[in-house]
Amino acid sequence: MTRTGRRPGEAGTRDKILAAARSHFTDVGFDGATIRGIAAAAKVDPKLILHYFESKEGIFVAAVDFPFDPAVAIPPLLAPGLDGLGSRLVRFFLETWESPAGSPMLALIRSVVSSERAATLLRGFVTREVLARLARILELDQPHLRATLVGSQLVGLAMLRYVVKVEPLASAPVARVAAWIGPTLQRYLTDPAATRSEGRPRKRTVKT
Amino acid sequence: MTRTGRRPGEAGTRDKILAAARSHFTDVGFDGATIRGIAAAAKVDPKLILHYFESKEGIFVAAVDFPFDPAVAIPPLLAPGLDGLGSRLVRFFLETWESPAGSPMLALIRSVVSSERAATLLRGFVTREVLARLARILELDQPHLRATLVGSQLVGLAMLRYVVKVEPLASAPVARVAAWIGPTLQRYLTDPAATRSEGRPRKRTVKT
Repeated sequence: MTRTGRRPGEAGTRDKILAAARSHFTDVGFDGATIRGIAAAAKVDPKLILHYFESKEGIFVAAVDFPFDPAVAIPPLLAPGLDGLGSRLVRFFLETWESPAGSPMLALIRSVVSSERAATLLRGFVTREVLARLARILELDQPHLRATLVGSQLVGLAMLRYVVKVEPLASAPVARVAAWIGPTLQRYLTDPAATRSEGRPRKRTVKT
Repeated sequence: MTRTGRRPGEAGTRDKILAAARSHFTDVGFDGATIRGIAAAAKVDPKLILHYFESKEGIFVAAVDFPFDPAVAIPPLLAPGLDGLGSRLVRFFLETWESPAGSPMLALIRSVVSSERAATLLRGFVTREVLARLARILELDQPHLRATLVGSQLVGLAMLRYVVKVEPLASAPVARVAAWIGPTLQRYLTDPAATRSEGRPRKRTVKT
């Protein structure tokens, strides 16, 4: 039992809301879920949910034990600008996963891989809250594709480092992994050519 | 029942060997497994196993439904040389996954994510048969790290395209995905700087 200074009964209400949120999110997906819907299922006032969790993302993060709140964590990563962003993202991703907050990540990956519903739910959340937030600051074309390519490299890194545990990725220090993988993310985020459909530039000389 | 022209009883023997191989591989891992051990468990002559499956990789591929035999599939990918190898690897990986032979891949990912033993087993096979085979032709330093970085990007691509199904990666044509991801693999495989531990070159001017 942790001592949080909450009034007695408050933890019970919070848990009741979280349980209702979990089944509501699973039923209708992240995009379809509403604070109102969760409140109705938990039989509480919607304002109480906002009081505890601030937003739909906030309650999602708490309900699935997502290791960070994108609204809180992402802006400081983006604040210094695009320079070095790839490396900062790798570092943040690994440090979060390896912190106490990251301990539910393996269970989250397991549920996504074994359940289509969990995959749909996480896709809605990550697309809207993580990828779109990242895409918004990119100045190049196809920002959503760019953010998704970044996601593909980070998820694969997690699979090899934490799940399958292939060396040297499994034991290398975070800074070293960031030096290996950072430039890949940087290219996805900032290279105009990275989202071309062909290996060559699109414009070709037209013979006349 | 498929008609393969085998003698009656042959399919039964083959299945008995595969069942023994599955538990032997699970018990001792890919590296620890031997044809002799599988033969003892199946109560058959080791020569019979070689007759059906040719090698330890061959029986592993059959036992876990791995979608290709690295000894057969990888040499033609490497034969044209390093030029364009990244793009060829992406294409081969996606085309295999999307072919009938690829249908057990999702089950394989699920078992790896949910079972430490399955992860250890697959790691042994992929490290020795896929990554090492790829590493052998690379002319730069740290070939095994390079092959592992390639693996991390391909596994993450599969997770986003086939498991979580994030657009536009989920529905993009193979050629387009190869154009996006190919250069990443090419850099891991052929860029001298890709395996440096620092963002800068290693050699520094020594002050005298």
